[in-house]
Amino acid sequence: MIKSKGYAAKSSDSPLEYWEFERRALEPNDVLIDILYSGICHSDIHQVHDEWGGTQYPIVPGHEIVGKIKAVGTAVTKFKIGDLAGVGCMVASCGECENCKDDQQQFCQAKKTVWTYNSKDVMHDNSITFGGYSNNIVADANFVLRVPESLDIKKVAPLLCAGITTYSPLKRWAVGAGHKVGVLGLGGLGHMAVKIAVAMGAEVTMISHSPRKRDDAALLGAHHFLNTQEADELDSRKSYFDFIIDTVSVPHDYNLYLSLLKTRGVHICVGIPAAPMEINGRSIMGGNKILTASSIGGIQETQDMLDFCAQHNILPETELIDIDYVNEAYQRVLDSDVKYRFVIDMASIEK
Amino acid sequence: MIKSKGYAAKSSDSPLEYWEFERRALEPNDVLIDILYSGICHSDIHQVHDEWGGTQYPIVPGHEIVGKIKAVGTAVTKFKIGDLAGVGCMVASCGECENCKDDQQQFCQAKKTVWTYNSKDVMHDNSITFGGYSNNIVADANFVLRVPESLDIKKVAPLLCAGITTYSPLKRWAVGAGHKVGVLGLGGLGHMAVKIAVAMGAEVTMISHSPRKRDDAALLGAHHFLNTQEADELDSRKSYFDFIIDTVSVPHDYNLYLSLLKTRGVHICVGIPAAPMEINGRSIMGGNKILTASSIGGIQETQDMLDFCAQHNILPETELIDIDYVNEAYQRVLDSDVKYRFVIDMASIEK
Repeated sequence: MIKSKGYAAKSSDSPLEYWEFERRALEPNDVLIDILYSGICHSDIHQVHDEWGGTQYPIVPGHEIVGKIKAVGTAVTKFKIGDLAGVGCMVASCGECENCKDDQQQFCQAKKTVWTYNSKDVMHDNSITFGGYSNNIVADANFVLRVPESLDIKKVAPLLCAGITTYSPLKRWAVGAGHKVGVLGLGGLGHMAVKIAVAMGAEVTMISHSPRKRDDAALLGAHHFLNTQEADELDSRKSYFDFIIDTVSVPHDYNLYLSLLKTRGVHICVGIPAAPMEINGRSIMGGNKILTASSIGGIQETQDMLDFCAQHNILPETELIDIDYVNEAYQRVLDSDVKYRFVIDMASIEK
Repeated sequence: MIKSKGYAAKSSDSPLEYWEFERRALEPNDVLIDILYSGICHSDIHQVHDEWGGTQYPIVPGHEIVGKIKAVGTAVTKFKIGDLAGVGCMVASCGECENCKDDQQQFCQAKKTVWTYNSKDVMHDNSITFGGYSNNIVADANFVLRVPESLDIKKVAPLLCAGITTYSPLKRWAVGAGHKVGVLGLGGLGHMAVKIAVAMGAEVTMISHSPRKRDDAALLGAHHFLNTQEADELDSRKSYFDFIIDTVSVPHDYNLYLSLLKTRGVHICVGIPAAPMEINGRSIMGGNKILTASSIGGIQETQDMLDFCAQHNILPETELIDIDYVNEAYQRVLDSDVKYRFVIDMASIEK
């Protein structure tokens, strides 16, 4: 077994606190990673507070992980000790079903996707997985990403979730030059969507009801800003967009945004509200509009995203914190008081 | 002016009755068609009863029209006298906007789509258009279809609406061999969707809560039947379909049908309910599902559909009636008591 130090919550209303635990010993296909940086994703907070149900305590969250290979299993050829490596939302899946073979391990049809934390590791020892708010992690090398050396390592971690979540649908729908893309919501996901869509060559508009976000959107590279509180601005953008990337997970008026799409335009949800979305039939029938959603992305696709980000030097905007600040950071995420993603310097756990 | 005989409703609660009226004289690009057959579409009934608002009386419905060219304008080269010809849902549009140029005249961005009846003819004399429950019609030759001689002319009319409405999305989404297609609702649209999807090479399943439709579905060529009242059958078809063509326009459980789609499967509404559709975010996020809708089709696409139907000898199942039966026929449509489309023999108006 491998000794680990991490931060865990012991119950749904406990803060995260220092906790020592063990991870499984390396199997032939596994690598051991010394974690350098770990991003904070809003979904960590949902699961710590058991808002999605099924949380097993203690929980060690974190699925935006960057570190260095510390040890490799006997069968591993992909990595050598000292390589930079990343882990995202998944650490295993069946590998044999149609979806796994099609690089969509998040939709493993055998229902054997093992999530990076708070998930039963049905592909190994049936233990509950512990995530990246920790000094190390053990994972199957096939689910570990190569992290390009050229990227600023302190900022890479959020690419493993926020990056792939926005890259995947933009890539799948072949967004590029000549396309008009609207991005809804300027947070961890939204700011990555802007950067990636711009790098893909699209004309990008930040869509927001907060005019105070106009300058921030421009700094991120957005070409335009649409203030949805201004009726004239809104009217001028009816039937305008080829794609809207919707990062908003609170209820909102989908029909309004569908009206901003061109004929055959595509509204892509990467955030979804808990309540049903109310879609007027005419909102999609008029113009043959498309409503879809996208959930993270496959492992090869995540590697492609990292390579794309290295090629274009795309990185999230991050605020680096020590692990003992994590509970305050959670509150600031809830208050939308971060531009745009917290990254934990995991060296701080040794202090 | 050209004298016409038709059947019209004089108010929202009047039956259709014999009415004589005039159509505009031929302009250079127009043709005059002697109507042989006219199909009855459910949307005729909605508009006769002003259920969508904005109906102008008297209304002469009918947008599934087949006839013979009686006269051609001086600039017309596409047709000669005696040719078979068809008219569908549209008779004009601006012709200059992006959508018109892209053969999507139903979405004319100049909002100049002129519908075949109950529509202000903004491209000609601003008169209100009269439809196909009539002995003749005048229309721009560019909006008139060539009707293949090989098809049984008594049955062709419903292709001009029910045919194109189902062909268009199947073609646009490139449905073909290797695809599993579910068809929801066995009526005018549903039975055409089955025939066309089968001809395109797909494996087709009729999805219904009425087990008594099983034999009818098989007669139409459906390979399978899924009785949604049977939990076991339903379970066996989770994550099964590449596409579902949804012809149902009363409220129904979209989340159930989304669960029958594979990863990235597409639910295509060709009918929509008046009330908002309630879509659970998880229903589309789990498997990156796609919800869309499709409204009729463009003029060239309609010609392609007619040629496709001629090649595969695809025709709707029809019941031929005289025009004086039209009010009873309407009631039978409302009672779902027709397999599957009424066609009016317009010669009966001379009786």
